[in-house]
Amino acid sequence: MLADLTERHSPLLGRALEAVRSREHWSPYPEAPDAYREQDPAAGERAFRRLLDTPFELDQPGRDGTVGPSPAAGGETSPYGFALGISYPHCDPAVLLPAMRAATADWRTATPEERAVVCAEILARINARSNEWAQAAMHTSGHGPVMAFHAGAVHAQDRGLEAVAVALAEQMRIPAAVAWRKPLDDGRTFALDKTFTAVPRGIGLVIGNSVFPTWNGYPGLFASLATGNAVLVKPHPQAVLPLALTVRVAREVLRDAGFPPDLVCLAAEHPGERLARRLAVDPEVRIVDYAGTTAFGAWLTANASQARLFTATSAVNSLLVESTAGYRDMLANLAFTLSLYSGQLCTSPQNLLIPRAGIATDEGHKDYGEVVADLGDALDALLADDARAADILGALLGPQVRDRVERADSGRLGPVAHRSRAVRHPRFPDAVIRTPVVVSLDASRARDRATLLSEWLGPVSFAVAVDSADDGIALLDRAVREKGALSVGAYTTSPEVERALEHACAGSGVMLSLNLTGDWYITQSAVYSDLHGTGLNPSGNSAYCDAAFVADRFRTVTVRRAPDTV
Amino acid sequence: MLADLTERHSPLLGRALEAVRSREHWSPYPEAPDAYREQDPAAGERAFRRLLDTPFELDQPGRDGTVGPSPAAGGETSPYGFALGISYPHCDPAVLLPAMRAATADWRTATPEERAVVCAEILARINARSNEWAQAAMHTSGHGPVMAFHAGAVHAQDRGLEAVAVALAEQMRIPAAVAWRKPLDDGRTFALDKTFTAVPRGIGLVIGNSVFPTWNGYPGLFASLATGNAVLVKPHPQAVLPLALTVRVAREVLRDAGFPPDLVCLAAEHPGERLARRLAVDPEVRIVDYAGTTAFGAWLTANASQARLFTATSAVNSLLVESTAGYRDMLANLAFTLSLYSGQLCTSPQNLLIPRAGIATDEGHKDYGEVVADLGDALDALLADDARAADILGALLGPQVRDRVERADSGRLGPVAHRSRAVRHPRFPDAVIRTPVVVSLDASRARDRATLLSEWLGPVSFAVAVDSADDGIALLDRAVREKGALSVGAYTTSPEVERALEHACAGSGVMLSLNLTGDWYITQSAVYSDLHGTGLNPSGNSAYCDAAFVADRFRTVTVRRAPDTV
Repeated sequence: MLADLTERHSPLLGRALEAVRSREHWSPYPEAPDAYREQDPAAGERAFRRLLDTPFELDQPGRDGTVGPSPAAGGETSPYGFALGISYPHCDPAVLLPAMRAATADWRTATPEERAVVCAEILARINARSNEWAQAAMHTSGHGPVMAFHAGAVHAQDRGLEAVAVALAEQMRIPAAVAWRKPLDDGRTFALDKTFTAVPRGIGLVIGNSVFPTWNGYPGLFASLATGNAVLVKPHPQAVLPLALTVRVAREVLRDAGFPPDLVCLAAEHPGERLARRLAVDPEVRIVDYAGTTAFGAWLTANASQARLFTATSAVNSLLVESTAGYRDMLANLAFTLSLYSGQLCTSPQNLLIPRAGIATDEGHKDYGEVVADLGDALDALLADDARAADILGALLGPQVRDRVERADSGRLGPVAHRSRAVRHPRFPDAVIRTPVVVSLDASRARDRATLLSEWLGPVSFAVAVDSADDGIALLDRAVREKGALSVGAYTTSPEVERALEHACAGSGVMLSLNLTGDWYITQSAVYSDLHGTGLNPSGNSAYCDAAFVADRFRTVTVRRAPDTV
Repeated sequence: MLADLTERHSPLLGRALEAVRSREHWSPYPEAPDAYREQDPAAGERAFRRLLDTPFELDQPGRDGTVGPSPAAGGETSPYGFALGISYPHCDPAVLLPAMRAATADWRTATPEERAVVCAEILARINARSNEWAQAAMHTSGHGPVMAFHAGAVHAQDRGLEAVAVALAEQMRIPAAVAWRKPLDDGRTFALDKTFTAVPRGIGLVIGNSVFPTWNGYPGLFASLATGNAVLVKPHPQAVLPLALTVRVAREVLRDAGFPPDLVCLAAEHPGERLARRLAVDPEVRIVDYAGTTAFGAWLTANASQARLFTATSAVNSLLVESTAGYRDMLANLAFTLSLYSGQLCTSPQNLLIPRAGIATDEGHKDYGEVVADLGDALDALLADDARAADILGALLGPQVRDRVERADSGRLGPVAHRSRAVRHPRFPDAVIRTPVVVSLDASRARDRATLLSEWLGPVSFAVAVDSADDGIALLDRAVREKGALSVGAYTTSPEVERALEHACAGSGVMLSLNLTGDWYITQSAVYSDLHGTGLNPSGNSAYCDAAFVADRFRTVTVRRAPDTV
């Protein structure tokens, strides 16, 4: 089995590493749902439907209860308006963690290549079921269908494969063995034979989020697994299914490849159990990957000191609109960006900073009010048709997002420049779908600054009047440093403004995207090319997927041996 | 200047990286003091003498006082028995840290290659003064002359260059720029031009130790500096001079190369100031490298959560004597190992585990008592001559080490198998020098286990009777896991015992050295080949110098730009 997997996946891993080195475009996983012959979108939906209203089986040790199926008992509810009715096994960590440790014996001593091809096989089997994964993403995170297929399935697989490839490369930097020979002054040679072995830390804990459980979860899961660790996945209570499916496939592949399935386990939790707090400080847990709120990230930083911690937390992203040579293209790009997945991406821009004196464009000068009004028109044009709007917007994650929209729409935060409207989904009448609300703020007002320096996850955007480009740059720089950001954007035709932005973004440590139009949006991250996060600002301490993301998940143990003869 | 440095040092860095990749023997810095024509040992001692009883000038900002020259005011005392009489500037961190941050502007935007060759020049100038550095090491750490020249000078420079080379390689993994082109389904191509810039974290703090201030300090100092950070060096109060000299040379080279000298500063402290606690939690400090006690390492882990922390802390090293095909060579190797620098190395073996039924050797069966007695004879033979003994032993670090020797020698820990004796140094009559004491312990006694599971830094060794090889392996495994270890050794001719040792050391995460005789000792670490530390046991969380040691000292910031034309 391992030899088969090596033959099948080694070239793929080599190609992935080539992409990571060059940062050129590449992906082995087609982006079109129809490319998956084994399972077209309709078959994917049928597979998903079969999961509903049934217990999700996982033969893990230490089972001591059931999570779900009712929402009161921890069962998931689709943002499209129905309860999934799935129940998951609950396992006692005091049994599960020692069983996982015991499972690592053969995995530790497998070669890095063997571990990498097993991981690649897990991803291959997930990839073949991408349409099913997309359904799971829609009905836990509320993605629209394209977002679900991309971020919920194939792009998450890309992030997983990227982590596997980078982890393999890091484990190969030091040779497995060397015959060390030191010439001595008297002409003799002193000899030692040395072996170097990559040794895992132990158990990695992956704490999933609700917005992108696979895309944010796979980097840590596969980086830890590929470096020889066992991995315990603690999903967000509202998005268990995508990671439960992932864990089940991982266990199947491990078993098929001759390894104990308990190398990968799921830790579903009872409502109010706060299981992440219990697991993250367990002495058995030596790595924690966390995606979620800044507050819990800070708690982990202060408390999970026995583990190597990788965080991806909240962001307040800003975008400066200073000038443009493509006004209509800019508006179209911005309208789509604000609408995509209802602005619930961690890379969605929240604050659009616009000089109050207006901007220069290829259509002449536009004053602040015109720009905001034209953006509203672009939103209306994009989202006029409910069916199309629903596909772009997806559904709101939960009532707290809807509350935010309603608060912004009420005018209590500031004058409403463009109102939100409810969208009716053609198939799911109970889905809660809202178009973006745009509120007009003024950076010179302290109250408005406080508003825009808070995170408003969801379809809530602020058009912010700033005194000048420099004023806008100072404000976005402050947002990055104080609140964290994954993405800063700008439209400008001025080389000076561009240089000032580059300087600011290098200083605060955030990715900068300039003058995006057409088929790419600031929210997007091209796996194998774009690093997601910098680790320099409060939005997280790490990046998908640089060497630092994997290099400390294993350590090297040396044996030095006097040879029998030289 | 930078072009000159590049021409001079680029090939050296390339060669260092080749060594790090192959792990073969290499060093650019000759190990013989006489190899340094610019400054022979006598000139080195003269240079050192000129430093004594004078203020050590460093033109750092924020000077608010003086440390030393009297021992009561924080001045250093040589373990060879005289006060150095040197005073150092004391600087206010509230002035120093902002000045250091301000100094980083041009260093951040220099290329990784430029930073690397500047670092290599710092090391070249230090290397040319190795005999002076050796004197500074002798009269702060108490090294003997060979140890001082090696660990205090040239091998520390090796560790520094290794860190610079690895840091350079890590910063080159991602290309500086890529023209990213994605083919679209409709035949068009979507284009983004991307740049990737290595951005430093900010200020790195290096907290030095007293035993090997340069060897333990250079990896962090040069890894942080080479990745674009400023570096503040907080030396151990008893070993300021080696790092003060280093900081002065670094500042000279930086100034010569056109960079602000405040990129590298010294933080000497008043007695009782506890300056490390103040600096390590300062928000400006984003990296901490610490070598010292496990207790303060734990404090840093719990408190310096704003920084990326690299620790090298206490160790309890064990060595199993199970069987040998070279009994006399083994005894000679062990006697030297226990004597070298009075067992004050972090890699010195403390516990010699010997089966109580004795061992098989090429001279026939030797029972436990015979092995211990023969080791005592080997120590006597090695250390019979006071002048030679003083060179091997060096001087005791301080009164707490002497107290430990006296306690062990008194018989209060257990039967004394070989007594310590005072050695008179031919030139320094006030030097406190002691030969190793060997105490006989029994692993079956709880009190003895408690004794051997504590750290006894200094010339205190335990010959520990164990029931069997397996019993010994279990005991050394426990010492690694509970107390931390940098080094496990063994003499065995049994493939089974060897396999069991390998398994145990991979499990607890510690380097294993087998059957060392002749010109290599378990205490030694070959730079560019041996990793120092594993990061897996309580003796530290990192290793000199793998990718993980440098990869997280900088982060990558991307700019994505829509190109004008494709």
